[in-house]
Amino acid sequence: MTDIARIRAAAARLAGKARRTPLLSSPFLDEIAGRRIFVKAECLQHTGSFKFRGAWSAISALDPEIRARGVIAFSSGNHAQGIAYAAKLHGTPAVIVMPFDAPKMKIENTRAYGAEVVLYDRIKEDRDAIGETLASERGLTLIRPFDEPEVIAGQGTVGLEIAEQAAELGIASGEVLVPCGGGGLTSGIALALESEAPAFTVRTCEPKGFDDIARSLEAGEIRSNEPGAKSICDAIVTPHPGRITFPIMKGLCSAGITVSDDDARRAMALAFTRLKLVVEPGGAVALAAALFHGDKLSSDDVIVVASGGNVDPEAFATLFD
Amino acid sequence: MTDIARIRAAAARLAGKARRTPLLSSPFLDEIAGRRIFVKAECLQHTGSFKFRGAWSAISALDPEIRARGVIAFSSGNHAQGIAYAAKLHGTPAVIVMPFDAPKMKIENTRAYGAEVVLYDRIKEDRDAIGETLASERGLTLIRPFDEPEVIAGQGTVGLEIAEQAAELGIASGEVLVPCGGGGLTSGIALALESEAPAFTVRTCEPKGFDDIARSLEAGEIRSNEPGAKSICDAIVTPHPGRITFPIMKGLCSAGITVSDDDARRAMALAFTRLKLVVEPGGAVALAAALFHGDKLSSDDVIVVASGGNVDPEAFATLFD
Repeated sequence: MTDIARIRAAAARLAGKARRTPLLSSPFLDEIAGRRIFVKAECLQHTGSFKFRGAWSAISALDPEIRARGVIAFSSGNHAQGIAYAAKLHGTPAVIVMPFDAPKMKIENTRAYGAEVVLYDRIKEDRDAIGETLASERGLTLIRPFDEPEVIAGQGTVGLEIAEQAAELGIASGEVLVPCGGGGLTSGIALALESEAPAFTVRTCEPKGFDDIARSLEAGEIRSNEPGAKSICDAIVTPHPGRITFPIMKGLCSAGITVSDDDARRAMALAFTRLKLVVEPGGAVALAAALFHGDKLSSDDVIVVASGGNVDPEAFATLFD
Repeated sequence: MTDIARIRAAAARLAGKARRTPLLSSPFLDEIAGRRIFVKAECLQHTGSFKFRGAWSAISALDPEIRARGVIAFSSGNHAQGIAYAAKLHGTPAVIVMPFDAPKMKIENTRAYGAEVVLYDRIKEDRDAIGETLASERGLTLIRPFDEPEVIAGQGTVGLEIAEQAAELGIASGEVLVPCGGGGLTSGIALALESEAPAFTVRTCEPKGFDDIARSLEAGEIRSNEPGAKSICDAIVTPHPGRITFPIMKGLCSAGITVSDDDARRAMALAFTRLKLVVEPGGAVALAAALFHGDKLSSDDVIVVASGGNVDPEAFATLFD
C-alpha cells in the first residue's frame, strides 16, 4: 500500500529528476472566482504532465535486473510519455500500447522519447491481451497508470509540494481541486496532505459523462460510466475508479465536482491569457471547477492542479475562434 | 549607479513579492539546438513579464511621501503592466502613457490593474511633453523603463536567480541570451552574473531592423535604428540603447545576435508545444537565437530568458495556421 513513508521515499528518488513546479496565481482569476485561486502548474513537469513523477517513481523502484528487461504500459498519452521518458533516462526499453486514435502529439512524443509504440483499436481489440502477450514474450514489467502503489507514491509528491508551497505563501487551509481519471494523482495528493497539511480538503474534478468518481464517492462504492459518452478531456476519460485508488479517495476526499467540456475550454483560454500556461482539456477541469462552479466550494483559498499541457496546437487554436 | 549591492537590496525588497520563475528545458529543444538549452520562464512572472521586478524595485525604493503622490510611466505594454500592478499593491496611484496602437491586451490589462491610461499618437504627439505636463500637475514620479538604476537593479534579480538555478542544475558555464530593447534586463543580468557567476557570458538578442544594441556593441558607441522598420516584437523595438544601460552592456556583454520575425514565431510555437509556455514575440527572440542561430554560439550549455508572454490570443493562434 501507499502511505506517507512511501511518498517520501518516492520524493527522495525524484529529487533533481522531477521539477518542483510553481504555484501560480492571477488577480484576474481571483476576480472571476470571487476567492483566491492558486494553480499548481504540472503542465510544466517533464513530458508535460504529472505522469512523469509516477513513472519515475515506479521505474526507479524496480530491481535493476528486472528493470533492464524493460517495461510496458497502456496509455492514451500522458502516462505513455511519462513512462517512455523515465525509461529512457534509466536506459530501460519501453513498450507503450496506445489507442490509434489518441492525440497525434501524444503518440509522436511517446515515440520521440524512444519508446516502441504498439497501436490498437479500442473497439475491436483487447488491449490487455496485446499487453500480456508482449510482456510474457519479452519479460517486460507492466506499469499500471494508477492502480500501482509506486505510481501513486510518485504522484503524491505533488501533494508534498503543495503543502510546502501553501505554507510558503501563508495559505493555512482550503480546498485542493484535482483533475481525476483513475485516481492516481488524487489519491497520492490526498495521502500526502492528510499527513503534511490536514487542514486542506481534496476534491475530485471530472468532465460530464465521465463522473464515475463523483458518483462512486457519493454511493460509497465503485460506479462505472455509461458507455458512449464523449469528452474533449481525453486524459481523464477512464471507465471507473481504480481498485486501489478508490478506497483511498473514499476515505480522504470530499464530494466530486463535474464540469462541461465548454467549462474546460474557457479555463484553458484563461490559463493562456492570465497564467501564460498551456493546459490540455483534461488538465483544465479543476481550474474550470474553481472558476465556474464556485457555488460548490466553501473555502476562501482554493488550490487547483493543472495536471497536463499536451494538446495539439491546432485544437488549442480553436479556443480563440 | 546600479551595482551588485543595489541588485541584492532589490532582491531583498522583492522577496515574497516577485516569483522565482523556473528554469525549464526539453530534450526536443536540445535536439534542435544541438546543445543543452535552459529557458528562464519570466513569462510566468506577475503581469506576464520580468518588468514587474523593476517596477516593484523602483516603487518600493521611493520615499513613502513621494510614493503616495503617485507614479507615471511611458510604455507600450509590459513596463506599463508591471508599474500598474506594483503601484496597486503599494496603494499608489499610477498614470501610464501608452501609444494607442499598443497590443489591445496590454492596454486592457494596464487599466485592469487599476492604472489611469493616457493614450497618444506615436507619430503626431510628443510623449515626453504629455508626461511632463501630467507629472508636474500632479506631483507624479516618473519611472523610466530602463534608464533608471532601481529598475535595472530589479531586473538584475533575474540574473541572481539564473546564477542560483544554474548551480543547482550543475551548469558551470555558458552563454546567457537575453531579449534586448533598451537594455534594462540585459544590463541587470550582466551585473548580477559578473558578480555571482562570472563563467557565464551575456549576449543580447534583437529582431531584424531593431539591432541597435548589436551595432552599438560592435561600434563601441551608441547607434540608433533606421526609422521605418517593422517587427512583430513590439516589446523590444526601442530606437537606441539606454544612456545608463549601454556602458554596462559595453563592458560586460559579447556580440549581439539578430533574429527574424519568423524565427521568433517558430520559437513561440516550440515554447508552446515543448515547454507549455505562452511567450510573446519579443520575449521569444533569445530562444529563437538559441534554436536557429547556433552557429553564433560557442557553449555546450545556453540559458535563454523568455522575457514575457503578453500576446493577444488571436495573434498567437495564427502561429499554427
